[in-house]
Amino acid sequence: MQQETGRIEAFSDGVFAIVITLLILDIHAPKGGPGHSLWHQLGVQWPHYAAYVVSFTIIGVMWVNHHHIFNHLVRVDRPLLFLNLLVLMVVSIIPWTTAVMAQNLTVSVDDGLAAAVLYSGWMVVYALSFTVFWWYVTREGHLFHAKVDPAGARGTRLRFGLGAVAYPVAFGLAFVSASLTLIAHGLIAAYYAANQLAIPLREPA
Amino acid sequence: MQQETGRIEAFSDGVFAIVITLLILDIHAPKGGPGHSLWHQLGVQWPHYAAYVVSFTIIGVMWVNHHHIFNHLVRVDRPLLFLNLLVLMVVSIIPWTTAVMAQNLTVSVDDGLAAAVLYSGWMVVYALSFTVFWWYVTREGHLFHAKVDPAGARGTRLRFGLGAVAYPVAFGLAFVSASLTLIAHGLIAAYYAANQLAIPLREPA
Amino acid sequence: MQQETGRIEAFSDGVFAIVITLLILDIHAPKGGPGHSLWHQLGVQWPHYAAYVVSFTIIGVMWVNHHHIFNHLVRVDRPLLFLNLLVLMVVSIIPWTTAVMAQNLTVSVDDGLAAAVLYSGWMVVYALSFTVFWWYVTREGHLFHAKVDPAGARGTRLRFGLGAVAYPVAFGLAFVSASLTLIAHGLIAAYYAANQLAIPLREPA
Amino acid sequence: MQQETGRIEAFSDGVFAIVITLLILDIHAPKGGPGHSLWHQLGVQWPHYAAYVVSFTIIGVMWVNHHHIFNHLVRVDRPLLFLNLLVLMVVSIIPWTTAVMAQNLTVSVDDGLAAAVLYSGWMVVYALSFTVFWWYVTREGHLFHAKVDPAGARGTRLRFGLGAVAYPVAFGLAFVSASLTLIAHGLIAAYYAANQLAIPLREPA
Repeated sequence: MQQETGRIEAFSDGVFAIVITLLILDIHAPKGGPGHSLWHQLGVQWPHYAAYVVSFTIIGVMWVNHHHIFNHLVRVDRPLLFLNLLVLMVVSIIPWTTAVMAQNLTVSVDDGLAAAVLYSGWMVVYALSFTVFWWYVTREGHLFHAKVDPAGARGTRLRFGLGAVAYPVAFGLAFVSASLTLIAHGLIAAYYAANQLAIPLREPA
Repeated sequence: MQQETGRIEAFSDGVFAIVITLLILDIHAPKGGPGHSLWHQLGVQWPHYAAYVVSFTIIGVMWVNHHHIFNHLVRVDRPLLFLNLLVLMVVSIIPWTTAVMAQNLTVSVDDGLAAAVLYSGWMVVYALSFTVFWWYVTREGHLFHAKVDPAGARGTRLRFGLGAVAYPVAFGLAFVSASLTLIAHGLIAAYYAANQLAIPLREPA
Repeated sequence: MQQETGRIEAFSDGVFAIVITLLILDIHAPKGGPGHSLWHQLGVQWPHYAAYVVSFTIIGVMWVNHHHIFNHLVRVDRPLLFLNLLVLMVVSIIPWTTAVMAQNLTVSVDDGLAAAVLYSGWMVVYALSFTVFWWYVTREGHLFHAKVDPAGARGTRLRFGLGAVAYPVAFGLAFVSASLTLIAHGLIAAYYAANQLAIPLREPA
Repeated sequence: MQQETGRIEAFSDGVFAIVITLLILDIHAPKGGPGHSLWHQLGVQWPHYAAYVVSFTIIGVMWVNHHHIFNHLVRVDRPLLFLNLLVLMVVSIIPWTTAVMAQNLTVSVDDGLAAAVLYSGWMVVYALSFTVFWWYVTREGHLFHAKVDPAGARGTRLRFGLGAVAYPVAFGLAFVSASLTLIAHGLIAAYYAANQLAIPLREPA
C-alpha cells in the first residue's frame, strides 16, 4: 500500500537532527590544572573542531537535499522506505567516522591516513546509497508529485552520479594527507550547498 | 476520551529515531599508536559493526511496522497509549542488549552465549509486547479507520503470532553459537522487511 | 501574541522522547571474563534495571498527561511557553537523578537513602512545577478549546494538588528505605496511568 | 524553489530539543562510599548545576525566539535554510561550552576565566549568527506572512542588534570573574524571556 510522506519525513528529520547533534558528544570537555592550562588543552583538540565543522556541514547539506527530494514526492512505497532506511543508516555512522578522524589526525602519519581513508571512504558509501535512492525514485517516477517531469528527473541521474565523483577524488586524497582530505570534504559540502540539483518540473501547457 | 493519532505517532517516531541513532554511541572510536595501528584496532571491533547493522535493521523494520499499523488507525485510547509505551520501553533497551552482545561476543564462549541469550531473549520480549499491542488493536477494532476490515484484521493474529515464532528459534540458537544468533536475527529482520503483514481492507460494496 | 499549539507540542514531544530514551545510556554494558562471568556482572546491576523501569514509566505517564492537557488547548501565550519550559527542565533532569539512585542504592545505607531523598525530592519538584502549569492554564481558561468547561477545569485543581501529595509521601519513605522509595514511585506511576484526571467538558446545550 | 516552513521547523525543533536535553549528559552521577559521602560529592558539583540551569534557560529562550520568527514566515528559500543551519550549529556547541565552563569554574582562577571567556564568547557568536539570520529575513521581507509589516520588521534590526550588545558585556565580565559571567548570562536570558521583540504587523486598512 502506498502511503503519505509525512511520517517518513518526520522520522528522517528526527534521525538527521539527532545525528547532527550527537557530533558534539565526541568532543571532550578538557579540564585545566597546574602545568596544562585550559587554553593549551583546548588548542590541542583542534582536529576535533575541524572535523566537527566539516561533518556538521556535510550532514546539514545531506538533510537539505533529502528535504528537497521529499518536497517532490507525494507518496512512499515499501522499497523506498527501506532505501531511505539505508541512507539513514549510512548517515548515522558519520559521527563515528568523524570521531575516528579527529582522534587520529595528529597521532601519526600512518594512523592519520588510515582515519582519512575510513572517513572519506564512508562518504563514498553515502554517495552510492543516495544515488541508489535517487535511481529508484526516478526509475518509474510513480511517487512524484504531478508537477514533476519524470523524464527530466531521470535525465539528472548522470549529473547526480557525476556529483558523486567528487567523493572518490577526496577518497584518493586520503592516501596523501589527512588534513587535505578534511579540507576537500569541507569544499565539496560548500559546493553542494551552493549548487542544488534542480528537479525539472513540467512546463505549464 | 479518544484522541487523534498525530501526537502519539510523533512521540513514537521520536523514540524510534533516537533509539536507532543512539546505537552508534556504543561503538568506541579507537586511537592508533606505536604497536597497535588504527587498522588493527578497527578490525578487532568487528562484533560491534555486525551487531550494529543487525540491530539497526531490526529497529528500522520495527518502525516500518509500527508506522504501517498506525496508518490504519484513526484514534487512540488510553490502553493503547500505554501498550504503545510498553513497546517503546522494550525498543529503548535494544541499544543496551546490542552493546552487551558486541562487548562479549569474542570474550569467551560462555560469555558470548550469555550475551546471545540476553540479546535474543529480549527480541522475544519485543515480539510478545508487539503481539499484545496487535491483539488489543484487533480485539474490538474500534480504533481502526473505516476502510479496514476488522474481522479480517483479527484473522491475521495467528499469522502475526507465528511470525513471532522465529524469535524463539533464534533464542534457541543462542545456546549454541553467539555469531549464528546474530546472523539469524539479521535474516529474520530481512524476512520481515520483504514480507509485510497485510492488514485486510473492506471490499468496496 | 497568542499562537498555535502545534510547535510547542512538537518541541515538548521531542524533549520527552529524548529524555525517556537517554535513560538507557546510564546503564553500563558489562564485559565478562575469567572470574567474573557476564551473568554475574549483569545480576549486580539490578538497581539500574529497577530504576530504569520506574523512571521510564513515570516519564511516560508525564508525557500522557502533558499530551492530555494540550489536547484541550487551542493556543499558547508567552507565560505558558515558559511554564512549559520549566516543566521540561525538571523532566530533563530525571535521567540524572535516576542514575544517582541506581549507582548508590547498594553502596551503603546512608548513600542509598541520600540518593532516594534526591530522587524522590525531585519528583516533588516536578509535581509542583506541573501544578503551577495547571493553575496557570485553569486560572483564566483563555487558552482552552471552546468545548472545555473552564469553571469545571478550575474545580480539578485541588484534586490535581491532592494527587501531588503522593510524591511527598514517597519522599518521606526516602528517609527509611531506598528500595521502598523506588517501589512507591512505581506504584504512584501505575496509579496515575490507570486514573486520569478528567478535564470537564461543557454540557451540550 | 521556495518551500513550506513545516519541515525546517520540525528539523530545528528536533535539534533544539536534543541540544537542550543533552545538557544533562555532562553532569556526572557521583557514587558515595566510605570517606566521601554522596551528599558531599553532590555538593562539590555545584558549578555543573549552575551552568546547567543557565544554559537550559538560554537555549529555551533561543527556541522561543526561533519559534516566534518562524510564526511570521510562510516560506523558506535556500539561503535561509543555510543561515538556519548556521544558527543550529552554533546552538549545538553550547552543551560543550557549558561542560567546559562547569569543569573549570573551580579548578583555578586562570582556568575558570579561560572557560568563562570561551562560554561567553560563544554566546557572542550566537548573537551574531542570529542577527545575520534576522537581517536576511528582514532585508527583502519576501518570506514573511502577508500580515507582517516588512518595513516595521526592518526597523527592529537595530534594537535586535542592541540586544546583542548584552552578550559582549557579559563577555567583558568573563575576564573578571567566571561566576559573575554565569550570573550575567542567566540575567540576560531572564531579560529576553520577559521582553520579546515584537514583530510589527500591518495595520488593518
